[in-house]
Amino acid sequence: MSIVISVPVREKTEWWCQALRELMPEWDIHPIEDCPDPRAVEYCVVWRPETGCMKPFVNLKAIVSLGAGIDHVLADAELPEGVPIIRTVGTDLTQRMKEYVVLHALRHHRALPEIQAAQQRHQWHPVIVPPATSRRVGVMGLGNLGAVAAQALATLGFQTVGWSRSPKEIAGVTTYAGSEGFDAFLAGTEILVCLLPLTEATRGILNAETFSRLAPKGAVINAARGAHLVDDDLLTALDDGQLAGATLDVFHLEPLPAEHPFWDHPKITVTPHIASQIDAPTGSRIVAANIRAFAKTGTVADIADAARGY
Amino acid sequence: MSIVISVPVREKTEWWCQALRELMPEWDIHPIEDCPDPRAVEYCVVWRPETGCMKPFVNLKAIVSLGAGIDHVLADAELPEGVPIIRTVGTDLTQRMKEYVVLHALRHHRALPEIQAAQQRHQWHPVIVPPATSRRVGVMGLGNLGAVAAQALATLGFQTVGWSRSPKEIAGVTTYAGSEGFDAFLAGTEILVCLLPLTEATRGILNAETFSRLAPKGAVINAARGAHLVDDDLLTALDDGQLAGATLDVFHLEPLPAEHPFWDHPKITVTPHIASQIDAPTGSRIVAANIRAFAKTGTVADIADAARGY
Repeated sequence: MSIVISVPVREKTEWWCQALRELMPEWDIHPIEDCPDPRAVEYCVVWRPETGCMKPFVNLKAIVSLGAGIDHVLADAELPEGVPIIRTVGTDLTQRMKEYVVLHALRHHRALPEIQAAQQRHQWHPVIVPPATSRRVGVMGLGNLGAVAAQALATLGFQTVGWSRSPKEIAGVTTYAGSEGFDAFLAGTEILVCLLPLTEATRGILNAETFSRLAPKGAVINAARGAHLVDDDLLTALDDGQLAGATLDVFHLEPLPAEHPFWDHPKITVTPHIASQIDAPTGSRIVAANIRAFAKTGTVADIADAARGY
Repeated sequence: MSIVISVPVREKTEWWCQALRELMPEWDIHPIEDCPDPRAVEYCVVWRPETGCMKPFVNLKAIVSLGAGIDHVLADAELPEGVPIIRTVGTDLTQRMKEYVVLHALRHHRALPEIQAAQQRHQWHPVIVPPATSRRVGVMGLGNLGAVAAQALATLGFQTVGWSRSPKEIAGVTTYAGSEGFDAFLAGTEILVCLLPLTEATRGILNAETFSRLAPKGAVINAARGAHLVDDDLLTALDDGQLAGATLDVFHLEPLPAEHPFWDHPKITVTPHIASQIDAPTGSRIVAANIRAFAKTGTVADIADAARGY
């Protein structure tokens, strides 16, 4: 009866092992590379697992993704077939994402990058923007994270619209669904927030065509996955002045390589995948509760749909 | 039956004249320096009026402050005595202030200045902070602006406390009052927001003693008046590491002189008095409604208490 943990950074693997051992003393818990008996492994707790790393676990009951997305698990070409994947979500993650989205939407709304650039020149440069009640913000993806973020933006006063694959209802938010609702969602949107799951349908959705349908001088915030964005299309839209700015938390390759043009671009804010970072002390409580419930009942609310991709 | 307008920048005076003329065609409206007949002036609409500029208006019925504060009016040593002062507030001003306070509280909470400094070095530097639900934010001053800002912070999830001269009740906010409640208000507060009126009792309230009672590595946001802050005490607290950062929208002298040390301080964000800037198209509607109501009834809800100072 054992659990193995696979996180790219060894130090973080230890952090998670320790947190889970405290909460689940009845289980054997090991970093994946130190597993003494692959046949005893019932649960694999992973973030970006290496290809094929779970093949030895022939008695695997479930895979736990250390995050709301499962794309990083499905990316394993040798993933054991038919094993359920449990997502890790919770009020802590939605709280953090809500903070991130509100912070960066307000930064663009209030032209803070322009004001801070003026500070560097010792220049008193008052930029008076309209109130948020006259500003349309659009949230793509209305799952746990997107719905809470959209609601927070609406509560703060923004004109908030949302878009998802299937129709959703959120108080104070005008929602659109499917490809037929996409253009109406984008039209007039000044700040576009991407919180979509990464699937074949959403890969590269932040592209030149999408940007061209936003209000002029808009801003883009990507806190979903790097592969949602076509990097070159963003650079072109920013350099042409079509977009005024972008805040990116996720990248095709992470950590973002030191020579990537995003780092120095005056209109791009780079944050190091911290929008809704799960920490071991909090996250392990959710993981432990999910594993215990799954062990007992064979299911939990946070099981992902591998065919759908999220 | 005339109105004169006094705003330090001539261009802005014209902006207000034009906006008010459109709304109040029955009145003669002039920049103060172009007033053809001082005896006809019944209302003076002012922002930082020059000393003695209102003395010629012997038939003045009320002074309109273009903002929520009246300290800039009371600063006129030759202010006509006994003339009521009407404050200019409204949902637009409270909306803007709420946005500013939430934006800058989140910036400090999420350590964005540290992450942006790392971006300049092309450094992937993930800073994981606790969720806002574990962070205590304190709002000093619970008038129209402070109450709305405190409520927005609480709604977003922050542990929110408030402090005011007289006791106030705000849903979701723990409130303290008077000098006897001040220490308890400050204890454990990590982000301190000043939205107080400027009076003799609040001048210099952001000082070394106050900073020393906050939680270590706290942040200060001043969106009230420059004279609330003892500049040197802030610099010392930042340089000693007692405070982690400050966002300042207001200054003893505005525009902030180009040689002031705040501009270049790595822990200070300077914004050019734009937290809740009133614009003429919106503000003139509030001013016109207040003047009309005052002319008709002799009073309005937004009359200030000159003896109290706000």
